[in-house]
Parts: sequence; C-alpha cells; structure tokens
Amino acid sequence: MKVLITGGAGFLGARLARALLSRGELTVAEGGAQPIDELALLDVAAATGFEGDARVKVMTGDIAQPAVLDAAIDRDTAAIFHLAAIVSGQAEAEFELGMRINLDASRLLLERCRALGHRPRVVFTSSVAVYGGVMPELVRDDTALNPQSSYGTQKAVAELLLSDYTRRGFVDGRVLRLPTISVRPGRPNAATTSFASGIVREPLNGETAVIPVPRDLRIWLLSPRRAIDCLIAGCELDSNVLGTQRAVNLPGVSASVDEMLAALREVAGDAVAARIEFRADERIARIVGSFPAQWDTTRARSLGLEGDASFAEIIRRYIEDEGIRPVAG
Amino acid sequence: MKVLITGGAGFLGARLARALLSRGELTVAEGGAQPIDELALLDVAAATGFEGDARVKVMTGDIAQPAVLDAAIDRDTAAIFHLAAIVSGQAEAEFELGMRINLDASRLLLERCRALGHRPRVVFTSSVAVYGGVMPELVRDDTALNPQSSYGTQKAVAELLLSDYTRRGFVDGRVLRLPTISVRPGRPNAATTSFASGIVREPLNGETAVIPVPRDLRIWLLSPRRAIDCLIAGCELDSNVLGTQRAVNLPGVSASVDEMLAALREVAGDAVAARIEFRADERIARIVGSFPAQWDTTRARSLGLEGDASFAEIIRRYIEDEGIRPVAG
Repeated sequence: MKVLITGGAGFLGARLARALLSRGELTVAEGGAQPIDELALLDVAAATGFEGDARVKVMTGDIAQPAVLDAAIDRDTAAIFHLAAIVSGQAEAEFELGMRINLDASRLLLERCRALGHRPRVVFTSSVAVYGGVMPELVRDDTALNPQSSYGTQKAVAELLLSDYTRRGFVDGRVLRLPTISVRPGRPNAATTSFASGIVREPLNGETAVIPVPRDLRIWLLSPRRAIDCLIAGCELDSNVLGTQRAVNLPGVSASVDEMLAALREVAGDAVAARIEFRADERIARIVGSFPAQWDTTRARSLGLEGDASFAEIIRRYIEDEGIRPVAG
Repeated sequence: MKVLITGGAGFLGARLARALLSRGELTVAEGGAQPIDELALLDVAAATGFEGDARVKVMTGDIAQPAVLDAAIDRDTAAIFHLAAIVSGQAEAEFELGMRINLDASRLLLERCRALGHRPRVVFTSSVAVYGGVMPELVRDDTALNPQSSYGTQKAVAELLLSDYTRRGFVDGRVLRLPTISVRPGRPNAATTSFASGIVREPLNGETAVIPVPRDLRIWLLSPRRAIDCLIAGCELDSNVLGTQRAVNLPGVSASVDEMLAALREVAGDAVAARIEFRADERIARIVGSFPAQWDTTRARSLGLEGDASFAEIIRRYIEDEGIRPVAG
C-alpha cells in the first residue's frame, strides 16, 4: 500500500516516516497489516535523510495547490497523515497564509479523496488550540470547541469537515488532538508554545531560555516519541470504535512553568535549570493561557493511546532520542 | 446607513426587509439609531414587492461569486444580515452546492468585510442542525457543536469563522441560531424540517400533510414573526454583551408531533387536525432526530430575545400574519 505524510519534511513528519519505515507495515482495514510499498513525503522543502530507502518518494510543492495533492494521492493511497500546518504564532500574524494552509489545503485534501472515492484513512493532527474561553474543569473529547486564535479556528474547521466527510463515507477520518509537543530539537519556532521546548532545550545547550508566560501557567505536554506512537495507533484504530466522535484528545502531562523547571533541575541539575529569563509577552500569554492545561484522557487510554508519565520523563526521552550532552557547568 | 440582506428575496429575508423598512432605522453603534438610507436585497432571484420604496436596491447574483459581494457591500454598509443558504435536505443531497453557498459564500462575505476594513455588524443565521450526537439534557449556547448533517457542518464552520473574524476586529459578528421556523407559508421545501410547517399549513388549506417522522419526535419551533424580531434585536445588541461567545440560541417552543397536532385541533378543530398522513422517511427522521428538541434560553432572554408562548400561539400568528382562512369542513 501507499502512505502519504504531508509536512513530511517537518519535525513530526520525518520522525513518523522513520517509525513507519522501521515497522514496514500498517493496518488500515480488517484484513490486518499490509506492507508499506511506498511512503510519500510531501512538503514545501524536500525531506532529507531517506535517500537509501527505495520505498520513500520525496515530493515538494505547495499543498494548497490542487495539482500537488492530485499528484500525491491516488487510489492506492490507503493512509494519509496530514501534518502540514502553519503554526499558531505565524497563523495569528499571517492570517491569509494560515487560512490557506490550515484550512484550504485540508479541504483540498479531503476533496481529492472524495473525487477518488476509495475512502482512505485520513489522520488529521489538531491541537489544544481548538479549546478556549470558559472551559469545564475536565476537558473531554466532546467539550465545545471555542478557539481563541486563528490557528485554533482553522484546526476546528478542518476537524468539522473531516467529520462530515467521514460521515458521508468520503474518507475514514480521525482527528488526534495533540498536547503541546515537547521537547522539539533545533531552534525556537513561531508556535506560541515554542517556549515549552526552549525551556528544556536551551538550558541543556548552555543557553538562556526566554519564557514569555507566567510561572504558574500550566501546559499540557507530550513527547515526540509518544506522539508518533499515538499517530500510528490512531491510524490503525478500527473505524467503528470512534463512532460519530472522530476526534480524540491524546494523553499528556500537565505542568506549570515552575514544575517544568523543577523537572529540569531534577534531571540536569541546578546550574542548567537556572538558565531561564522571564520576559512577559502578553500576546503569547493570552493565546497560550486560553489553551486547556489538561484534559480527560479516559477515552484515549481506552483506545490504547498513551502519553508520558511525567515531564522529567519527557526531558529524559529528549536527551536519549536526540543524543543530547547536557552542558552542565 | 446602508443595510444588506443576503437571501433578501427569500421567506425570512423579505419579511425582515419589510420590518426594517417599517422601522426606518437601526442601531449599530453607540451613537444610537440611524436612518436606513439604502436596503440592498441580494438573492439569486429578484426580490419583488418593494417597487414603491426608493430605499430598496434589488440585486441579483450568485453570492459565491466575489464580484457579486464586492458590488453589494461597501464601506457604507453598516449592517449585513446573511440569510442566504441552501437548506438542510438539499445540502445533504447536493454536497457541492451546500459547500459553495453555505460555506464558501459566508467566507467570501467575511473576506469582503475584512478587505474594506470598516468592521460592519454581520448577523449570521444558524440552526439547531449544528448540534447532534449525544447532547446534554439542556443544550446551552456553548454546548459542543456536533453536526450530523452537511448543512449543520457548513453552518458550524461559518460560525467559527465569524467568531474569529470578530475576535480579530474584521467584523462585529453575531450568530443567531434559529429554531425550526414554523409556519412557513407556500409550498413544502427541501428542508428536512419542512413538515414542521406542512403539519399546520396543509390541513388549514384543506390538504393532507405527510409527516415523515414519528409522533413522539420533539422539535424546537419559532414563528417567523418572532424570528424577525430576534434578528433585528440581535443586530442591535451591544457587541460587548456577547463577549467571546458570539452565538446565541434563540428561544423556541418544544413540541412533539402529537403536541403540534393537539395545538392544531385546539385552534382549528378536529376535522382540520385529521388531515395528516404518516409516511416514515428514515433519512429525514435520522437527521431531524439528531437536532436538539429544546435548549436553554436563559442567555437569549437575558439579552432581550423572546420566542413564542406555545405552538397554538404560533398557529394563530400564522393565521393572522398570512390572512389564512382555514378550510374547516
């Protein structure tokens, strides 16, 4: 079978690709696991690091162009992981770009599947950002979507469309709402939650992390490793177990900024955890503060989707997975 | 000031136009009521019956064409009532048409306002159809949207976009979720709730109404007269009282099919109420059955929005407003 990852050159996309190639197979129908014959990685920039694998097809293009999706999806494409997105901070700053990629491209992808008529599995990643405003103490999979950012709005719209396309039998869709992914390697990005990786990454690297939110702000967090496990497991879920509620809130760890720093101190020592500077950014604090700090994970766990045990574990996974050598002194 | 009604030749649109012309003014800002200098009625067919009023500008065109909206909205357009829509049954049967009018045109309208930059009041009508699935006993304004029809999905998406465009200051939007409007005069239409008007209209007219749903199915109902009152009051609401929750569920009357028939008997007698035939239609029963049968109206009433007292009152309003002479014998 063919599998497509949009955003396949990105952080999660490339990791997902490696995990799928390593497994070599995927279950997308009752018949059981089938070998992955082709893994298409579509992104604006070419995915690299897959040169040795004949199964990988690196594709580049603007995902909001119908021709690009027409070329990337055909009737043999049995599973699509739609990860391509403009991150929250950028979608707030560049409204048209966010609408184009987060909304229009998602719809085009669904439309391409409808035109083909073979009902592939489509996994959308969504976000804590679809929630906001006055929330119940325990946010559930079916808590009202009330986004307070353009990114969250665009994700919520894509979720609704995916559900309707699924109900009508155009796709077999599932939405996995991701906690904030931490720790992302590399440099800070334009996500409003970028600091949730920087708070670990920069101090371990001997640099100072700038934190734009208050110490008591709580965030809902998931390691990249667990996120990839959940994406694959979510794709393999039998369609019927999801029923009419296609979205699942993935399990996370709830931690305040202070608790994240305490975990960093526990794992890497006082000197590392001291490399922090607070510089308030009201815009970021307002948007991130509108996200739920945790949610009910009963349904996700009953579906076999698991998160991390603690933020300290998330830090240790980062050090292990990325081969980090903490700058201690 | 200029006011625009999309769907201005339609049932509610034409009534709203008459009500606005009769009032002659509208409050859309702190300065108080301003005279309506121009009332544009945009629809696919030309609105008729307004020939004598120099304030009325009849416009025809496809609302999903940007040029049509460009011509209909300028910086003097201070209020827009966006009523144009493909009804539920048709949006389910003609997927592309529903997406085009209910979603694309709504977005184009918002985009036109964003481009102009003058932040007009925009009143969207939405529907019970945005709800569905497992609902709480009391559906509130902020209960999760979970549409089980393409119409409901398209309305929910338009709601989300309106909220984000409002949050960003592109428009001053408000969504009024309408109960099923009853009694509509004329012929049955392609709405899945068409029978909720036919059940009164046809028997009063000496004809047999065909009911496609079970006797115990409950519906949430509002008279056209009250709906128009609510649309105008909703437009005049101060923006701040809505806060981040731009959608308001309008008050209605909850009645089962049997209770609707009992009210018809009360108002028009046994012979009229006997002109009913039950002919089950599973598709309609499933979609209408997914709509909430009533919802919490505390917020609407606190905002000064009022519904009808009973279904018998709704029937009497229909007889009075439309000058109906019941065919009794």
